[in-house]
Amino acid sequence: MDLKDILKPVDAEMKQVETRLHDAARAEFGPLALVIDSIIDSGGKRIRPAVTLLAGRMFPQPDEGLLKLATSVELLHMATLIHDDLLDNATKRRGSATINSKWDSKSTVLAGDYVWAKAAKIAAEVGNPKVLGIFADTIMVIVEGEIKQDYTDAKSRPHRDEYYTRIYAKTASLFEGAMRSAAVLGNASDKHTNALGQYGRKLGTAFQIIDDVLDFVGTQADVGKPVGSDLRQGVVTLPAIMYYENHPNHPVMQSIAVKNGHNSQELEEMIQEIGASPELAAAREEASKFTSDAQRELHALPKSKYRQALFDLAEYVIARNK
Amino acid sequence: MDLKDILKPVDAEMKQVETRLHDAARAEFGPLALVIDSIIDSGGKRIRPAVTLLAGRMFPQPDEGLLKLATSVELLHMATLIHDDLLDNATKRRGSATINSKWDSKSTVLAGDYVWAKAAKIAAEVGNPKVLGIFADTIMVIVEGEIKQDYTDAKSRPHRDEYYTRIYAKTASLFEGAMRSAAVLGNASDKHTNALGQYGRKLGTAFQIIDDVLDFVGTQADVGKPVGSDLRQGVVTLPAIMYYENHPNHPVMQSIAVKNGHNSQELEEMIQEIGASPELAAAREEASKFTSDAQRELHALPKSKYRQALFDLAEYVIARNK
Repeated sequence: MDLKDILKPVDAEMKQVETRLHDAARAEFGPLALVIDSIIDSGGKRIRPAVTLLAGRMFPQPDEGLLKLATSVELLHMATLIHDDLLDNATKRRGSATINSKWDSKSTVLAGDYVWAKAAKIAAEVGNPKVLGIFADTIMVIVEGEIKQDYTDAKSRPHRDEYYTRIYAKTASLFEGAMRSAAVLGNASDKHTNALGQYGRKLGTAFQIIDDVLDFVGTQADVGKPVGSDLRQGVVTLPAIMYYENHPNHPVMQSIAVKNGHNSQELEEMIQEIGASPELAAAREEASKFTSDAQRELHALPKSKYRQALFDLAEYVIARNK
Repeated sequence: MDLKDILKPVDAEMKQVETRLHDAARAEFGPLALVIDSIIDSGGKRIRPAVTLLAGRMFPQPDEGLLKLATSVELLHMATLIHDDLLDNATKRRGSATINSKWDSKSTVLAGDYVWAKAAKIAAEVGNPKVLGIFADTIMVIVEGEIKQDYTDAKSRPHRDEYYTRIYAKTASLFEGAMRSAAVLGNASDKHTNALGQYGRKLGTAFQIIDDVLDFVGTQADVGKPVGSDLRQGVVTLPAIMYYENHPNHPVMQSIAVKNGHNSQELEEMIQEIGASPELAAAREEASKFTSDAQRELHALPKSKYRQALFDLAEYVIARNK
């Protein structure tokens, strides 16, 4: 099923969020406004505002707060992308040059901070202190996760627990926080709020696993960055971890695990090997378990076209190839 | 007059803010908690929470929101210090090692972001959307100012307008935002809110000018960093700008102004020369005009021990030598 079809119930709202994102790119300082606008223009699936709107629409509430929330969620995501690309030394994102490939690292971080502040500003305008608390908590989880990633002990071998903690901070926490916030804003019951939060957490986890799978097989044209870029940056994701679990004595994987000793040709071969391995399919299978779990959470919520869209979205997240 | 005496009317509140700052240093990730705690321990004058509390106490309001506001203001300030020290490559702050002297630049920025998020979290708990809006606006002004400073055209000569824009972003905006927020929280009239905001802006401006003056004359023991550290980092502050205005053909000042060509001995002599120049006294005089203006703003407010404290604080800001 096509993403556009799935999101039909919030089509009008998604268009408004797009306009608001471009409005938010305005900055007094010209060069800053330009780089922010270029990130917004480079698109992306806008899946975070989508789930925010779908969750919010399940409960009767005025448009304005929900649109602001969805806009601020995507801005917060963009701010983390700016920092991520810097931490990963990425030069391309969705086929466009990253800010850090154009600016020095200090300005890049500040540009990310600026987008964060814009996100906070719009979240503040939502006018709901509880929503703002969730927003601030989510920022802390994301930032603490980034620091931990930067500080991972060079001697520690990559393992699943560490991976799941990392992707919760990086991705799932924002899905969870966004959907909880949308429910809170609609005065949803605790039961409904928690179900949507859990759905968000599980969907976000699956979404990140698939991102990490696609990093091994996606073509440059589809994912907008070279194949195997995570491993090349020393970031060991689920497919590589599962491969390592099954090949604990593989010399190249060992050298990657302790972050030294492999040459670039060995690394390229390793990326090819993981990309063609049964572990890649097994990682997809893991993601699939998370989306099934996410779908099960939806049973706590009343039937509606929004609930159906969230159900279909879980299928899409698994099936996507970019 | 001693700072401690001036702040007597909010003594109990200041102690509570101190406790809350230490509580806020807690982070799940041990190394992060340690560095944040070291910044909080290194002290500082806590002048921002002080003005926040004094402004807030002018209007009847519960303790809790005001204490949270004052705590979040100081945390926001600390976050900007972390980023500032990185941008300036400073190794010492108030005599203690800076985070960037211990951690790499990415982690340092993330530590700053984390403290920002803590500040945002506590500001969110204040539960007043208008206060949060001011908070987010202030962050944007500060960050945009930092980006501009990083991006100042190497060809542009330093001048006063640029300096005042820079220190508004860096310092005065937070004094202004903090005092406006405290008034808003106390349901103050627009007239009172604006007067306190203007006082904050002017006091903050004077405070930064004196900081910049002390950078030329303060001893390492008093200011906790080497004399002339701004100029050594290529940051041209008011005393140097005024010196340059009066000596437009001075070869070393010219080379500093265009950021090349001077050797380190010439720079040391220049720092000495500005430190002993009439322009240094003239810069103090400029600061003094701002504090007089700040004091005049207070006339719009009813007489109280809090108003008196703000009046005395303006005198202190000018007289201080550290």
